[in-house]
Amino acid sequence: MKRLIVDMDDVMADATGQFINYYEKEFGVRIDRTILNGKGEGEGFPENHSTIAEFPYRENFFRTMAVNDHCQEVLENLNKKYEVFIVSAAVEYPMSLSEKLQWIKEHFPFLTWKQIVFCGSKAIVHGDYMIDDLVHNLEHFNGEKYIFSAPHNLHLNHFNRLNNWKEVGEKFL
Amino acid sequence: MKRLIVDMDDVMADATGQFINYYEKEFGVRIDRTILNGKGEGEGFPENHSTIAEFPYRENFFRTMAVNDHCQEVLENLNKKYEVFIVSAAVEYPMSLSEKLQWIKEHFPFLTWKQIVFCGSKAIVHGDYMIDDLVHNLEHFNGEKYIFSAPHNLHLNHFNRLNNWKEVGEKFL
Repeated sequence: MKRLIVDMDDVMADATGQFINYYEKEFGVRIDRTILNGKGEGEGFPENHSTIAEFPYRENFFRTMAVNDHCQEVLENLNKKYEVFIVSAAVEYPMSLSEKLQWIKEHFPFLTWKQIVFCGSKAIVHGDYMIDDLVHNLEHFNGEKYIFSAPHNLHLNHFNRLNNWKEVGEKFL
Repeated sequence: MKRLIVDMDDVMADATGQFINYYEKEFGVRIDRTILNGKGEGEGFPENHSTIAEFPYRENFFRTMAVNDHCQEVLENLNKKYEVFIVSAAVEYPMSLSEKLQWIKEHFPFLTWKQIVFCGSKAIVHGDYMIDDLVHNLEHFNGEKYIFSAPHNLHLNHFNRLNNWKEVGEKFL
C-alpha cells in the first residue's frame, strides 16, 4: 500500500473559514473570502492582524472548524486503498492537540489513533504522496507533493495543484 | 546535521518507575523493579493487570514522571550536534498529549515545539538514528536502531543496546 499523508488545516478543515468566522464575531465585519487570495495566512484581513494571530490560541478554534466539502467520503475511500496518515503541525498550538483529536474522532470515525501525527516540523515524515496547503511543509517531502488550494497559496506554482476534495478523489481513487 | 530520533517513555522518562509508584499507591505494595525484567510491559506485576492498564489514562500519570538520570545534560549536548526529534507514540492516550508537552517544556527547555512529534505508528518518521525501548518502534526505522534498556526488553538481542544516558553520551557525543 502506498502511503498518503494528508494535512488538516485548510485541507481537511476549513481553517480559512474559521478565521473569517472569528473575525466577524470579534469585529462585526464579515469579509469576503476572495479578498484573502494571494495574501499570506492571516495577512489578507483589512486590519487587526495581531488579534487574528491570537485566534488559534482560543478555546474551540480547532474543535469547531467545518469539514471541507466531500472530504469525508473521499478520505474514507482513500483509507481503503492507501496507508493514510493525517499529519498536522499542531504542537505550535498546545491547546489544539486534544481539540484536533476530538475533531478527527467526530468527523472521521474510520481513522484510528495509529494514523494520526501531531508534529512541529513535517520534515520528519516520509511517504509516497503528501497533500498540504503550505509550501514549507511540502518542500522537504521525499514523495510526490500536491498543494491543496487555499487563499494564501493561489498565486504559487510550485507543485501539482488539487483545488478541492473532488479533485483529490479523481487523482487518487 | 544527522537526525537523531529519541523516544520519551522509558527512554527520557522513567515510565516503569511511574507504574511502580502508581501500583504502590493503589495496592500498598512496593514491588522491586528487577521482578519486571524480561516480562512484557505491565505484565511483570504480581496481579491486578487490568488496573495497571488503566494507569496511563489517569490525570498526571505522564506529567509527573521522573526524568531518567543524565538525560537532560546529555540531550542538551546532543541537541547542539544533531537534529534532535522527540517522537512519542502519545496519540493512544489522548490525555497524555498536553501532559507530555508540559513535561518536555519543564525538563527540556532547550527543545522547541518544532522538534516534538506525537504519533500513533512510528513507521512514518525517518532519520539517521533512533533510540527507543520498543522493538516494534525500531523495526520499521530506516536508520541505525538503538534499543534503550528497560525491564521489558532486557531479554532481547535485536539491536545495539544503550543501557543508560551515560552510554548514549559516549556513543553519540
